[in-house]
Amino acid sequence: MKLGFVGLGKMGRNMVENLLDHGHEVVVYDLSREAVTVAVQKGASPADSFEDLVSRLAGSRTIWLMVPSGEPVDKVLDSLQPLLGKGDVVIDGGNSNYQDTLRRSRKLREKDISYMDVGTSGGLEGARNGACMMVGGERDVFNSLVPLFKDLCVPGGYGYMGESGAGHFAKMIHNGVEYGMMQAIGEGFDILRNSDFAFNHHEVARVWANGSVIRGWLMDLVARAFERDEELGYLSGEIADSGEGKWTVETALEQGVSIPVIAGALFRRYRSRSHDNFSDKVVAALRHEFGGHGFTPTANQQ
Amino acid sequence: MKLGFVGLGKMGRNMVENLLDHGHEVVVYDLSREAVTVAVQKGASPADSFEDLVSRLAGSRTIWLMVPSGEPVDKVLDSLQPLLGKGDVVIDGGNSNYQDTLRRSRKLREKDISYMDVGTSGGLEGARNGACMMVGGERDVFNSLVPLFKDLCVPGGYGYMGESGAGHFAKMIHNGVEYGMMQAIGEGFDILRNSDFAFNHHEVARVWANGSVIRGWLMDLVARAFERDEELGYLSGEIADSGEGKWTVETALEQGVSIPVIAGALFRRYRSRSHDNFSDKVVAALRHEFGGHGFTPTANQQ
Repeated sequence: MKLGFVGLGKMGRNMVENLLDHGHEVVVYDLSREAVTVAVQKGASPADSFEDLVSRLAGSRTIWLMVPSGEPVDKVLDSLQPLLGKGDVVIDGGNSNYQDTLRRSRKLREKDISYMDVGTSGGLEGARNGACMMVGGERDVFNSLVPLFKDLCVPGGYGYMGESGAGHFAKMIHNGVEYGMMQAIGEGFDILRNSDFAFNHHEVARVWANGSVIRGWLMDLVARAFERDEELGYLSGEIADSGEGKWTVETALEQGVSIPVIAGALFRRYRSRSHDNFSDKVVAALRHEFGGHGFTPTANQQ
Repeated sequence: MKLGFVGLGKMGRNMVENLLDHGHEVVVYDLSREAVTVAVQKGASPADSFEDLVSRLAGSRTIWLMVPSGEPVDKVLDSLQPLLGKGDVVIDGGNSNYQDTLRRSRKLREKDISYMDVGTSGGLEGARNGACMMVGGERDVFNSLVPLFKDLCVPGGYGYMGESGAGHFAKMIHNGVEYGMMQAIGEGFDILRNSDFAFNHHEVARVWANGSVIRGWLMDLVARAFERDEELGYLSGEIADSGEGKWTVETALEQGVSIPVIAGALFRRYRSRSHDNFSDKVVAALRHEFGGHGFTPTANQQ
């Protein structure tokens, strides 16, 4: 297929290479000229503006967005919408909030532009060699895009999740589950490290990655990290989060659904970034007030 | 190798078949004559008592136990210990508590019998076709048993975890991690089911099982379960637990290590078996007492 591709960041760049490998014609646009040049060296056609991008696509146009979620997506759509019309398809392959997706697809539908949401998983390696894609939007448009999904994904790695928003909703929940699974793995290794046995973390992870019930890509990745450094001494335990875990918990709160493990994993991430936590100070103060229990003074009081 | 095998339950029976497939000579004993007969039909040699079992093994004997953890292991060892001596090896492949393993290995060492602990994972399919084994005990004995582990496990699926107890300790933590991962998966599908989208749970699980970050055997298994029944209508949500999760939390408590997700998953299992929970009653009563809030009367008060 011939398609436009906007956003040549870590994920986008790898996906473009994968598309080119599979013989697709890709016209690329990115704010970074350098990123465009790199993609052109791999075989893509360059566009130097949204107008240029659209003019290089004939007939019913397909444009894949791989830009950071939030405002950047709205900005790109503001630029693209006036240039597109009936029968054109815009695909948001990023980690957009599904509620933004609902709003955007309503707006584009006014001009008969199809807006497809594609939750993409599998990391950078997946983007390059075969990812996992959860697709929302019109089913007939999904069907027409299958040649792309087939080439971008591992076998069995894409599917139609439902109407507009369902793809990004499924990706949001995927990431919520991921938070819980990662936290469980982290806790397990914390106990191993604190035991009297002299466990080799890499060896444990390697064995667990092969034939165990908890085998999977996360176990492969933790084995790789421990192979580099048994103690993970090159990084701190501060864990960032990019929104999907928070949205998952917000969604569960709206639904009244109990998700202690996913919520606990999210809150643990917040805690990981707080070196002297106020709730902990309150509890330490209360212990002191009622029981005269000792406390650790802050550095400037010592 | 030639070895004795005690315990032909679901796991043991499959492992014996796997050993026979790989050309090992297996002398089997089980309290159930029927189980012995089935194994003999597959090519094993029968033993009708522990004495018979030991007499059929020559030289330094290797006996693999695959019996339920706790008292059954002690009973078998009480019978075997007087019959064995220097150079003999007993392997506990079950889910024993590592502290029991430490006690048992000390006792057997008095008679120069090696006691190896092998945490076994991979379910029934793994037992039959290739499992994951975490091995504790003397390293030279581990080395001498590698031909068995190699044939019983998938490639890369076995490893030396450390001295006596380390294998069962690693398996305990494996299961604790498993509790957290399973609970995270369960919570994710609960949100999907409660959303306004009409998700097909099997389709979501199938896509997640291929190429996603959270792909792995648990995702394959949940896809299989949803393929059978989208709503899992054939079972209740009561979740049993067989000890390892509890031991994991007990170990973390002894260490003072914070494991909110694994502990939360264990407590969620307890809650799953309690249909009218007392802590919930206390909270409902307090809401009523201070705020006059309504409550749901028990059936016999309505």
